[in-house]
Amino acid sequence: MKKPEHIIILGAGLVGSLLAVYLLKRGYRVTLYERRPDMRKVQIPAGRSINLALSDRGWRALEGVKLAEDIRRIGIPMKGRMIHPQQDEIYFQPYGKEGQAIYAVSRGILNCTLLDLAEKAGAEIIFNQRCSSVDLANNTAKFLHSDTNQASEAKADLIFGADGAYSAARLQLQFTDRYNYSQTYLEHGYKELMFVANADGTHQFEKHALHIWPRGGYMLIALPNLDGTFTVTLFFPFKGNPSFEMLDSKQKVKSFFSEIFPDAVPLLPTLEEDFFQNPTGSLVTVRSFPWSFDNKLVLIGDAAHAIVPFYGQGMNCGFEDCTVLNQLLDEYDDEWEQVIPAYEQHRKPAADGIAELAVNNFYEMRDLVGHPDFILRKKIEAWFSEKHPDKWIPLYTMVTFSHIPYHEALKRGKQQDAIMDEVMKQPDIEKNWQSEKVEQRILSMLN
Amino acid sequence: MKKPEHIIILGAGLVGSLLAVYLLKRGYRVTLYERRPDMRKVQIPAGRSINLALSDRGWRALEGVKLAEDIRRIGIPMKGRMIHPQQDEIYFQPYGKEGQAIYAVSRGILNCTLLDLAEKAGAEIIFNQRCSSVDLANNTAKFLHSDTNQASEAKADLIFGADGAYSAARLQLQFTDRYNYSQTYLEHGYKELMFVANADGTHQFEKHALHIWPRGGYMLIALPNLDGTFTVTLFFPFKGNPSFEMLDSKQKVKSFFSEIFPDAVPLLPTLEEDFFQNPTGSLVTVRSFPWSFDNKLVLIGDAAHAIVPFYGQGMNCGFEDCTVLNQLLDEYDDEWEQVIPAYEQHRKPAADGIAELAVNNFYEMRDLVGHPDFILRKKIEAWFSEKHPDKWIPLYTMVTFSHIPYHEALKRGKQQDAIMDEVMKQPDIEKNWQSEKVEQRILSMLN
Repeated sequence: MKKPEHIIILGAGLVGSLLAVYLLKRGYRVTLYERRPDMRKVQIPAGRSINLALSDRGWRALEGVKLAEDIRRIGIPMKGRMIHPQQDEIYFQPYGKEGQAIYAVSRGILNCTLLDLAEKAGAEIIFNQRCSSVDLANNTAKFLHSDTNQASEAKADLIFGADGAYSAARLQLQFTDRYNYSQTYLEHGYKELMFVANADGTHQFEKHALHIWPRGGYMLIALPNLDGTFTVTLFFPFKGNPSFEMLDSKQKVKSFFSEIFPDAVPLLPTLEEDFFQNPTGSLVTVRSFPWSFDNKLVLIGDAAHAIVPFYGQGMNCGFEDCTVLNQLLDEYDDEWEQVIPAYEQHRKPAADGIAELAVNNFYEMRDLVGHPDFILRKKIEAWFSEKHPDKWIPLYTMVTFSHIPYHEALKRGKQQDAIMDEVMKQPDIEKNWQSEKVEQRILSMLN
Repeated sequence: MKKPEHIIILGAGLVGSLLAVYLLKRGYRVTLYERRPDMRKVQIPAGRSINLALSDRGWRALEGVKLAEDIRRIGIPMKGRMIHPQQDEIYFQPYGKEGQAIYAVSRGILNCTLLDLAEKAGAEIIFNQRCSSVDLANNTAKFLHSDTNQASEAKADLIFGADGAYSAARLQLQFTDRYNYSQTYLEHGYKELMFVANADGTHQFEKHALHIWPRGGYMLIALPNLDGTFTVTLFFPFKGNPSFEMLDSKQKVKSFFSEIFPDAVPLLPTLEEDFFQNPTGSLVTVRSFPWSFDNKLVLIGDAAHAIVPFYGQGMNCGFEDCTVLNQLLDEYDDEWEQVIPAYEQHRKPAADGIAELAVNNFYEMRDLVGHPDFILRKKIEAWFSEKHPDKWIPLYTMVTFSHIPYHEALKRGKQQDAIMDEVMKQPDIEKNWQSEKVEQRILSMLN
């Protein structure tokens, strides 16, 4: 394979734009093709973002091309979860140690910023081009103009599919021999709403927290925006009781929210209108393999491994794809026929790991976070981890504030969970957890 | 939904043809559309059948429309496995009790027979029509003629997708909202070969057995045909050592077979030619859900749930779909809007169960069947089951010689396996397995 000179990236979303910057800095000529119009020039339809939470893996990828400072200006640190029980007082659970935080970022603002930075780095970006198919034998992507339906095509030495969960590039691979593929939907969907700001533009709830209303089978969450609003998301069953299907009138929506999320309702002045105007999104996990074809087409980000949003890792994982790819390009001196298989071998188990973690975290967020047992577990873990940071890192910290491969975090998390199950069975654990006996018990199980 | 008058079935394979007979007997008008030419009139390409093994579930489905007698004439009972070790003497393992057998049937002959029977029952069968898409909103299937590519379409009150593992009907569903789908390939493929008959048309190996050459990571199997030949299948890794990739010359094929399957080689006079002429098949498991759209399109057989062939249940499972569907039509008096969801609810867990069992049985066949521990386990199970037939049915018997739902068999099989793991740990079990102590031990674990 001769060294590629011109690379096409399908999709100018978050991962596609960042990948473009990485490849441009390595000296490749890069053209991005994007299905949608230029979002810097048109209004983005409301209600489809699921606000993003940038954490350490994402930051490292941005730092790799010196973009972190630009992005940090548009982020809001969230230091923990603010839990809103249905009856009791709200309370705070820190995500990690002092100084650790995840950053709420608006998807739209972040994407616009990355498009600017990609263009500044030399990318050509062509909008309104929907990829209709990829001619794998001839390295050629085929497009239809999103408005006029006019056909066109483009050939390159290498094509990246960064075109998201419903990737056209991946669909092409799906028809090749022995392609492993799955798409799995949760029985829950999501609906986006908006908390209004105070009159002076400040936030009506604590700004430096991710707010959760855990309600067992479902939950409401809220992430702060720069303008004092919060982006609010209801994760809710499509069918059953309660469900989207049941809330079929404005009156039912109002009375449901008033009963279940009482402190949220005053911040949702247009609740009933928004509820029926905004779309109901679905939540899919996509697994695929291989992520490449004949060193001509490579999948990256959601196109390779879309996950559900409950660990806040979708974008972070896609950004980490870029970091790892770049490291491998360094390591193999841009010999793509070595880089591509190594990239797949590195990232496939990681992607499978975070896919599992993300689904698991839904149960934690919507249910467990509100239970006294869960809170005690987290306390014991934090206490022990502080005493033995070399022996124990809480799972959330491994995923969010470390670069431990996701599958390794998943495995260690399961081992730690089994140990905590034992610890929680100790008599009077809620009283004597800060004891040497408990410490020794954990140490003995770790060996 | 008004009662359908005209039903289209996509695919005139085994399940499509049998389903047609069932629906015709209930008074529906049925048209079958088949991608291939009429196999009763043209030569079928060699090397793609994986011989079939009809067992109790399949027989019941055939009996339901009084076809069992016609089919029994073209089947050969196989009473057990004949194991061919690499070094030692061959030996026999019965599948079940005296009188129990599975039946080797040629896919081609069975399909031709079912096509005849479907036509006799009143089906219209249109060949050379490849379904290109289904217009779900308008109950309309679209076709391209396999030779001329001429487009046509057909509308019906209800469309069945019986179009196999690479179903066009299912692909259409895959683009509907929240469709769960997976295709998973084994890292093994298969190659079909043929054992020649004796000069007098008799079989060169025992006729009433399924022959297995278990070799750990791979295996050879052989099923008898009516004409004295055996259809032989090598299940073998695509890559690695050994693998299809490695056997890249006639000389390597010959010396590999001579070393690994010495007693098979004399029956394979055209081994080297056939090995390179016949295609290498791949082995896929397909999971999908739902199996229907808006009571207009329903999937059945491999189109809904393709499985790997190692339990010999692919066709039997598809035929059982027909039995269950027919029972539900009886139960709900042909009210399809009740029948279709009930069919999906009944069959989805069963299909998932046999998919898992089929993959598991590959390990058993290619590896475990040759081990003394395995043989002892089977003996103990058979002995205990004979004493307590109400308490214990060996897994193979549940799957093959019963109508216990597959997922129930899987669950009970796992429980029994855990018990047998314990039993096998007893000291000197190989000597004292036929003891009251062992019997009591199993009984106590069952409670």
